[in-house]
Amino acid sequence: MPNLRTLPAAIALLVLATTSRLGAQTGEHEAVRAYVDAHQHAIVTELVDLLRIPNAASDRANIRRNAESLRGLMERRGIRTRLLETGGPPLVYGELEVPGATRTVLIYAHYDGQPVDTTRWVGHRPFEPVLRAGPLDAAPEILPFPPPGGRYDPDWRVFARSASDDKAPIVAVLAALDALRAAGLQPRARLKFLFEGDEEAGSPNLERMLRANRELLRADVAVIADGPRHPSGRPTIAFGARGIVSVHLTVYGALRPLHSGHYGNWAPNPAERLAELLASMQDGSGRVAIEGWYDDVAPVGDEEREALDALGALPDNEAERRRLGIAEPEGAGRSRWEMVMLPSLNVKGVRSGWVGAEARTIVPDVAVADLDFRLVADVRPERQVERLTAHLRAQGYHVVHEEPDAATRLAHPRLVRLAARTGYPAVRTPMGHPAARAVLDAVRRAARDDVVAIPTMGGSVPGYVFPELLGATFVNLPIVNPDNNQHSPNENLRLGDFFDGIVLLAAAMRVDFDRVRSATEPPEGRTR
Amino acid sequence: MPNLRTLPAAIALLVLATTSRLGAQTGEHEAVRAYVDAHQHAIVTELVDLLRIPNAASDRANIRRNAESLRGLMERRGIRTRLLETGGPPLVYGELEVPGATRTVLIYAHYDGQPVDTTRWVGHRPFEPVLRAGPLDAAPEILPFPPPGGRYDPDWRVFARSASDDKAPIVAVLAALDALRAAGLQPRARLKFLFEGDEEAGSPNLERMLRANRELLRADVAVIADGPRHPSGRPTIAFGARGIVSVHLTVYGALRPLHSGHYGNWAPNPAERLAELLASMQDGSGRVAIEGWYDDVAPVGDEEREALDALGALPDNEAERRRLGIAEPEGAGRSRWEMVMLPSLNVKGVRSGWVGAEARTIVPDVAVADLDFRLVADVRPERQVERLTAHLRAQGYHVVHEEPDAATRLAHPRLVRLAARTGYPAVRTPMGHPAARAVLDAVRRAARDDVVAIPTMGGSVPGYVFPELLGATFVNLPIVNPDNNQHSPNENLRLGDFFDGIVLLAAAMRVDFDRVRSATEPPEGRTR
Repeated sequence: MPNLRTLPAAIALLVLATTSRLGAQTGEHEAVRAYVDAHQHAIVTELVDLLRIPNAASDRANIRRNAESLRGLMERRGIRTRLLETGGPPLVYGELEVPGATRTVLIYAHYDGQPVDTTRWVGHRPFEPVLRAGPLDAAPEILPFPPPGGRYDPDWRVFARSASDDKAPIVAVLAALDALRAAGLQPRARLKFLFEGDEEAGSPNLERMLRANRELLRADVAVIADGPRHPSGRPTIAFGARGIVSVHLTVYGALRPLHSGHYGNWAPNPAERLAELLASMQDGSGRVAIEGWYDDVAPVGDEEREALDALGALPDNEAERRRLGIAEPEGAGRSRWEMVMLPSLNVKGVRSGWVGAEARTIVPDVAVADLDFRLVADVRPERQVERLTAHLRAQGYHVVHEEPDAATRLAHPRLVRLAARTGYPAVRTPMGHPAARAVLDAVRRAARDDVVAIPTMGGSVPGYVFPELLGATFVNLPIVNPDNNQHSPNENLRLGDFFDGIVLLAAAMRVDFDRVRSATEPPEGRTR
Repeated sequence: MPNLRTLPAAIALLVLATTSRLGAQTGEHEAVRAYVDAHQHAIVTELVDLLRIPNAASDRANIRRNAESLRGLMERRGIRTRLLETGGPPLVYGELEVPGATRTVLIYAHYDGQPVDTTRWVGHRPFEPVLRAGPLDAAPEILPFPPPGGRYDPDWRVFARSASDDKAPIVAVLAALDALRAAGLQPRARLKFLFEGDEEAGSPNLERMLRANRELLRADVAVIADGPRHPSGRPTIAFGARGIVSVHLTVYGALRPLHSGHYGNWAPNPAERLAELLASMQDGSGRVAIEGWYDDVAPVGDEEREALDALGALPDNEAERRRLGIAEPEGAGRSRWEMVMLPSLNVKGVRSGWVGAEARTIVPDVAVADLDFRLVADVRPERQVERLTAHLRAQGYHVVHEEPDAATRLAHPRLVRLAARTGYPAVRTPMGHPAARAVLDAVRRAARDDVVAIPTMGGSVPGYVFPELLGATFVNLPIVNPDNNQHSPNENLRLGDFFDGIVLLAAAMRVDFDRVRSATEPPEGRTR
């Protein structure tokens, strides 16, 4: 990553070297679309079969069935595969040589899914895929899957765990390859495939496995096929994702809850102390008040500025605000796309004493809060934890990392326990980076609608591993509908987005790194 | 109450009119003690039989068995009784005329108990009383009850629900009457007895019943026989109890929890907003920062000052602080006995989002807090709620009292729901009040140890009803051990405290209102 961001801003201005192949490319995308259109039944069937295999990362037997099934789908297409054993769910690796290709594109997705709460799925079990004519609330009725040769309306949806997150992109990648071949085309780059089996469990093995298989996995570009499109549903490409740190704070009062009448406002109240601490961490308008919080943030480049302005101007923003019931967002008028360019501090949860029907007239003995920090490029996880620690100390707190004993509690009037999982750093490819620009260009040519280009997603994926360990330029190409109920019951995939996604992924496989070059290079030379 | 507190401070200085009966009184208390000593078995048996009747206020059949049983115990002693029907558990009322008496003492206690969690009682069921040689952790073994004529060690304890709270005081009152009679003595005042059956359910009928029976219940002094002694275990008398207000606050964010990566620091976070609000309500050192919070607090009188200084000087305070694990109490060096002279604001509980193993990376949609305000004399419940409301508005909040709809949430950037149960006001008898002083004097003469005189208890009981509705001076004479596990499993009664309490209650029945008179009267009297 750092090597990418140290490029002068001017390099970020790119020009198309030629447009001579435009006509040919348009025909190419139409051919791919026509293939998908004619093979809807086979493609959906392949997805549905895969969705029938339960895929919680902790379900060892079924996870391996998923991996073996993927391996079969890949081998059938002439992809050389290997299972990279992690000790847990294997990484399914595949490689496809392309004669004459000088670049490598690695396509990453994951085949495990979030745990399921079967009781909250409506009308079917999460690993028994069903078809509906729309979202659950609008179209509760379950439709029969059409027979071979039958057509799917683009608004129809397949409901199942991992329908969207993240098996659809895997099936789409394979269908894209079929479509290219049917159109007599080959990918322009050597392809590597990496399908992870414990992403939803926090990718505990990914960094280690990538370090151990650096040479095998080395690539020029890593295309992450995960996550939903922009809320508008338009084709989307993102150039970064935020890192994350999880923090658990415990503030201590007396050794046990005390009667609030006898002890209130005499015994220190940890719920009140915690409230003071949390209030001290931000200024009430979405700005973090911890010293140095924004110090390492790299300035926003010209391309990013332009992309942010375009994102901020979308009418979807105002509709989204109203739909969410937000009277006034924080951030002093900046869109949420701009806010995610900054490191955040969010209070995920707070607990102390009892509330509501369970409320008891006590002074609580402890108060806890869970926070997450999102990180942007150049902001390292451990530095933000250090800044928080310094902030706690500046508020007069003695900071410990283990549960304090009674003597420690008696010794320190202000005592906080800080437990941090430092998570991982952000990833961000400058939008002017030639390889990323080439992918964007390829996707734009294939798309039937304006492509939404997002400097960084607000969410976190450990995408830093691709540039930091493999030297690959990170781009995220999410294809599924934004209202897919990812991680929740009744997860679903809108088939129109899925079919369109196949075309976009085919375009990414056909990315032409030679079509763009930097404006700083001599105009005659072909550049990357 | 107001009529008491409008007395000039000078009247608070009282003098003993005579000490001529001192010798006789000492003999009297010894006679009472001797009676208790000789009748331990019968007294404990009466208590144990009463404890065998389950007494949750909601257990209609058994509550009535308790009431009938009490009635029998009272009638057997020549007390004329009535059940005052409330629609729920009846008030057991009794009256004992004393020839020549010009004053009336009403003794209040309650016969219902807190609900029980049978699974947490060790070695027996809560309504099967057992005997142990000490506290549960020190003396887990269950002892047989001694046979008739057998002796009880003062450290022995009876374990059962309501052993301390509040059946022991009822049995003690009746035993005190027996002891006086055995010594050839009569109460000096007409006695009225009022035993409530739904105190632990929040006394839902008490105010209404007292209003409806004002003439029947009218008294000069109300002796509340409830609660534990001072933590030192010394004889204790308290002249007030705090009132209470319960408040439930809800702060709103978006209509549903949002992904913290995509929306954090853009979507308003109600957990952070609530933290700001709670932090704004106090100054970090136990002082409430809401405007006007202390405006109505009456100044501390000379007797109260003296009592507070004496309480603050007790070595128990430092031992208690260490035992509770409190490094530094709030209140700028004031003892907790002084802090309870002020109205409090306590955060009982806070909830927002999820924490610990359940933490989810979201911006919560709501955050709630439960607070209790304790009230002191002259601070009315509704005024404190008004002050809180004004404070919330001053922080920019729109205040509602019902769950807001989506339109309301969209209209107000800062929105809080306030639900208050205004509870009831405080009760406080000036320590210089002649009748209260007379009771203190009587108890001091009977006690074998220094009596701890407390201006006000920190806890809340609806004692305001006695001065406000019956015109009776409130005093609280708690007799049971402070470590009685009141409201908890393994509630117990230390028999030494119980036997001693009978002597103290007998002294209260023999209170001589003519022994003390105001200092504004001619100075020839002996002063104390």
